[in-house]
Amino acid sequence: MDSLTTPTTDISSAGISRAEALSRRYGAAAPAGDPPSNGPWNETIASLLDHRSVRGFLPDPLPPGTLETLIAAAQSAATSSNMQLWTAITVDDPATRKELAAIAGDQKHIEQCPLYLCWIADLSRNERMSQAEQADLETLPWLETYTVACIDAALAAQNAVVAANALGLRTVYIGAMRNDPARVAELLGLPPKSFVAFGLCVGYADPKAKNEVKPRLPQSTVLHRERYDATPERRDRAAYDAELEKFSARNEMAATSWTRRVLARMGPIAAMNGRERLRATLAKLGFEIR
Amino acid sequence: MDSLTTPTTDISSAGISRAEALSRRYGAAAPAGDPPSNGPWNETIASLLDHRSVRGFLPDPLPPGTLETLIAAAQSAATSSNMQLWTAITVDDPATRKELAAIAGDQKHIEQCPLYLCWIADLSRNERMSQAEQADLETLPWLETYTVACIDAALAAQNAVVAANALGLRTVYIGAMRNDPARVAELLGLPPKSFVAFGLCVGYADPKAKNEVKPRLPQSTVLHRERYDATPERRDRAAYDAELEKFSARNEMAATSWTRRVLARMGPIAAMNGRERLRATLAKLGFEIR
Repeated sequence: MDSLTTPTTDISSAGISRAEALSRRYGAAAPAGDPPSNGPWNETIASLLDHRSVRGFLPDPLPPGTLETLIAAAQSAATSSNMQLWTAITVDDPATRKELAAIAGDQKHIEQCPLYLCWIADLSRNERMSQAEQADLETLPWLETYTVACIDAALAAQNAVVAANALGLRTVYIGAMRNDPARVAELLGLPPKSFVAFGLCVGYADPKAKNEVKPRLPQSTVLHRERYDATPERRDRAAYDAELEKFSARNEMAATSWTRRVLARMGPIAAMNGRERLRATLAKLGFEIR
Repeated sequence: MDSLTTPTTDISSAGISRAEALSRRYGAAAPAGDPPSNGPWNETIASLLDHRSVRGFLPDPLPPGTLETLIAAAQSAATSSNMQLWTAITVDDPATRKELAAIAGDQKHIEQCPLYLCWIADLSRNERMSQAEQADLETLPWLETYTVACIDAALAAQNAVVAANALGLRTVYIGAMRNDPARVAELLGLPPKSFVAFGLCVGYADPKAKNEVKPRLPQSTVLHRERYDATPERRDRAAYDAELEKFSARNEMAATSWTRRVLARMGPIAAMNGRERLRATLAKLGFEIR
């Protein structure tokens, strides 16, 4: 088989039907017929719907060229005005991995996964260009530009995640890099006006680690027509709470509803693990966010 | 053919080899062997690398169930702590489309595409939950939470884009919804603490509209190991400038290098089309961004 010319079949979700994939994704929370069971379907969409975050990885290394394939996929995502405001850094050094894991609240999978990628919202590259060309970039200090850099990095990373899933790999995003962006920047030698927006673990799932597809809110809550419509929200949330409680019991022991989880996560500032300092820290790293 | 059980083949990029896809994505700007021509490959990755933004659409409607499939793909993306901080709204009303197109600097494809989706960074849903449960969400006013909502929306939207591409559809993101987020919020009846982060046109590409794959910066500029390394940047930028000048001549008439485009786009505040007011406007929409 010549990998240069012959696409091989996706392996992560082969044979899953649309009805089965939708049932896993929405559980019993979705109102009947929402989403409809007819509609387009193919292997790529099966792979997308089969996504689940995985926190237990085998030590097996990735095949040669995998990293570059993931980055090519990432670069193929749209980027605002082709500004390409992101950079990725791989971290292999065990000591650095260990400290990053500690910053993230002792997430051991950061140490254990075969590939750890940091995704950087990066205004520094284009600033270096402007310095070389002796032209000022007046747009850098604004919230808009910060927002574009974060969105650019997210679009790129998500393409890498989709590519990884299509290769039978699993991933988990690590938002907790933002617990201490200054120390993370120091560890990676980042220039001013760049910071790690999030990390990403990539590897083969440990078959011993449970990783069922997590149900989401019914579409009636997240998809509206013409104008915002919160009407179905209460009904949907009650159904979803029940569904996520069952999911939690099956997978994470503590049977907790979505409502209770969100209130615990978004209620107290203490739950932010230091991320309430993000604005002040980013200011020190060169982001004015005016 | 039963779409419920039998995945159909992706059609957007069938038969493209890894070598050809990489050559289109990087042009002649990439140093030899970067990215390597060996490595994993399949239809999904071919589809990812074949992405291009399209601004000319046929009027043909999408097959039934397509919208719901795109949203199911979007909801299958990771979301920080399962908070699901986004909402999507479709806009069909021609008068609303027309005003959105005007806000975006007269982007006619917003009026012409068969599906226009607004992607909302949405803190309002979880706030309504907290009000119903009489529990305060202390984390709402912080930059961190704003950032998570934007990233959540971007991860979701990118999955919808990948799904659309896999169905032979094309898309273009509309960041220019941020030219006037207050008026956009009014048009869509958004509650406080939500705003349209970006729009997305979806449809079948008009074969008369040119839409070649746009080359990106060489991987040596965007992918680093262990620590940030700007060393290859100058060499890569010169090569990429030449490549993008050729691309522009073939596709957009004005043969302009990447450097000149970025300096024009990021240099003067005037190029922000009002987005320098994003922070002030979002404050009025309920985002404190502390």
